Amino acid sequence: MKRKPARSRLLVAFQGERGAFSEEAARKLLGPTINVLPCPRFEDVFCALERRKVQAAVIPIENTLHGSVHENYDHLLHFDLPIVGETNVRIVHNLMAPPGVPFGKIRRVFSHPVALNQCLDFFAANPQLEKVPFYDTAGSAKMVMAEGLKDAGAIASAVAAEIYGARILRRSIEDDRQNFTRFFALRRPRDARRGIVRAKNGAPWKTSVVFSTRNVPGSLFRSLSAFALRDLNLSKIESRPLRGKPWEYLFYLDFIGQVDDPVCRNALGHLRELADLLRVLGCYPRGD
Amino acid sequence: MKRKPARSRLLVAFQGERGAFSEEAARKLLGPTINVLPCPRFEDVFCALERRKVQAAVIPIENTLHGSVHENYDHLLHFDLPIVGETNVRIVHNLMAPPGVPFGKIRRVFSHPVALNQCLDFFAANPQLEKVPFYDTAGSAKMVMAEGLKDAGAIASAVAAEIYGARILRRSIEDDRQNFTRFFALRRPRDARRGIVRAKNGAPWKTSVVFSTRNVPGSLFRSLSAFALRDLNLSKIESRPLRGKPWEYLFYLDFIGQVDDPVCRNALGHLRELADLLRVLGCYPRGD
Repeated sequence: MKRKPARSRLLVAFQGERGAFSEEAARKLLGPTINVLPCPRFEDVFCALERRKVQAAVIPIENTLHGSVHENYDHLLHFDLPIVGETNVRIVHNLMAPPGVPFGKIRRVFSHPVALNQCLDFFAANPQLEKVPFYDTAGSAKMVMAEGLKDAGAIASAVAAEIYGARILRRSIEDDRQNFTRFFALRRPRDARRGIVRAKNGAPWKTSVVFSTRNVPGSLFRSLSAFALRDLNLSKIESRPLRGKPWEYLFYLDFIGQVDDPVCRNALGHLRELADLLRVLGCYPRGD
Repeated sequence: MKRKPARSRLLVAFQGERGAFSEEAARKLLGPTINVLPCPRFEDVFCALERRKVQAAVIPIENTLHGSVHENYDHLLHFDLPIVGETNVRIVHNLMAPPGVPFGKIRRVFSHPVALNQCLDFFAANPQLEKVPFYDTAGSAKMVMAEGLKDAGAIASAVAAEIYGARILRRSIEDDRQNFTRFFALRRPRDARRGIVRAKNGAPWKTSVVFSTRNVPGSLFRSLSAFALRDLNLSKIESRPLRGKPWEYLFYLDFIGQVDDPVCRNALGHLRELADLLRVLGCYPRGD
């Protein structure tokens, strides 16, 4: 009797180099044994999933210090790739260098400009270190190792240190510990239902929608009433420009509730009466 | 009898090189004869005004294709520099080169990546042209002229062509004509009232505020009711993360109304009851 082939491991796209925070999020969401496809740009991540090069994708959607990743809101509208899960990752920055390079020899520190700017207290306390902007955090770890630099370090995640074999010299050097990034897992529409990322802790469900209102006074207020009058809690609202209609906006809204629940169905029916456009982007258990 | 010295011309800070769209906005808002102080970063623009190096500043706040300039929303909160006027500038991209360089000789086109991406139809129709990303639109015109390149052009504003002496070879090559940027004029608090940028057309007034709500269900809906129940029209809402409180938000709101008008005063009093923080960022005639 022929044996069934072992179930192949999920292939997951994300933006950035191996060891990026998106890879950490992907393993947290979809398991430690996934295979990954790093992509140069966010759009490439969405395309890889749409064109069936991968089975899932993981994208950052907002950061507690920097706000939303607006480009990804735009992609969520233009691609039909439902959100099936979310998670929050604490952004921990570590200084790393090739093994054998001690802290005292380091003069240059490579990383993404945002990461460098999140470690200003560390640089103030170590004025001998020069900040050198680089295209990617994990990419800076990769480069410092590949070039075998003797006077340089990189700021990146612990996962990046592991992947590239760098040694962590100083852990958690970020100024603000309240630095979290929220990530979404995406699947193709046909795989969405069975692809839902189950929460361990019986977390409530969240639903994400995008809508545009008619450009009349009070229209946003009336749209929100569809939720408020049913005691549905909003967790996020984000506005984006509506292309071709200057000074009109799309609204992206997350609320606590399961889309098949009668109250949620009624709220969305009510919103549909008021909105020019309404699309459910996904329904998934709230991330930890 | 001693004559009074001629009133000195207003000195205005903006981000970018001479000839940036911000300079066009500054002249539109504050007159063609102003003196200007170009600054490398948005933060430098705010600092220049706060430290009295200039009398006014002009900043972009949103674009109809790309959305808000979120960094400037954050600066509006952290600096106390009231908004005294707004205007909208249509973003027109032109291909320019040093005089004597014909279109047929051009192989490389320098500009800011966003500008290059807004002229994709032009590049598709002219596949011999290579897009070369540069730090600034006007800066690319400056560099192409300074280096006297014989095979290169720049994409920038007509004002940049004039300032650097470049010749415009193709006008208005942007894909989307619905590309507008909204700019604010800022003054110091003591100069705000007399610094208001009067509208020519009797335009209605706009008021910009920032507030945070208590983190309870329905709080955004109740906050908006302060305006909706008084028939005050919102023209924009923008959310930004609240630092130190992960997953809580600040809201920036523009509404049509004059802050001293009784209805507006009542609306703001009502919002103050509901909000943890409320600040008026400015009240100014609506831009054309």
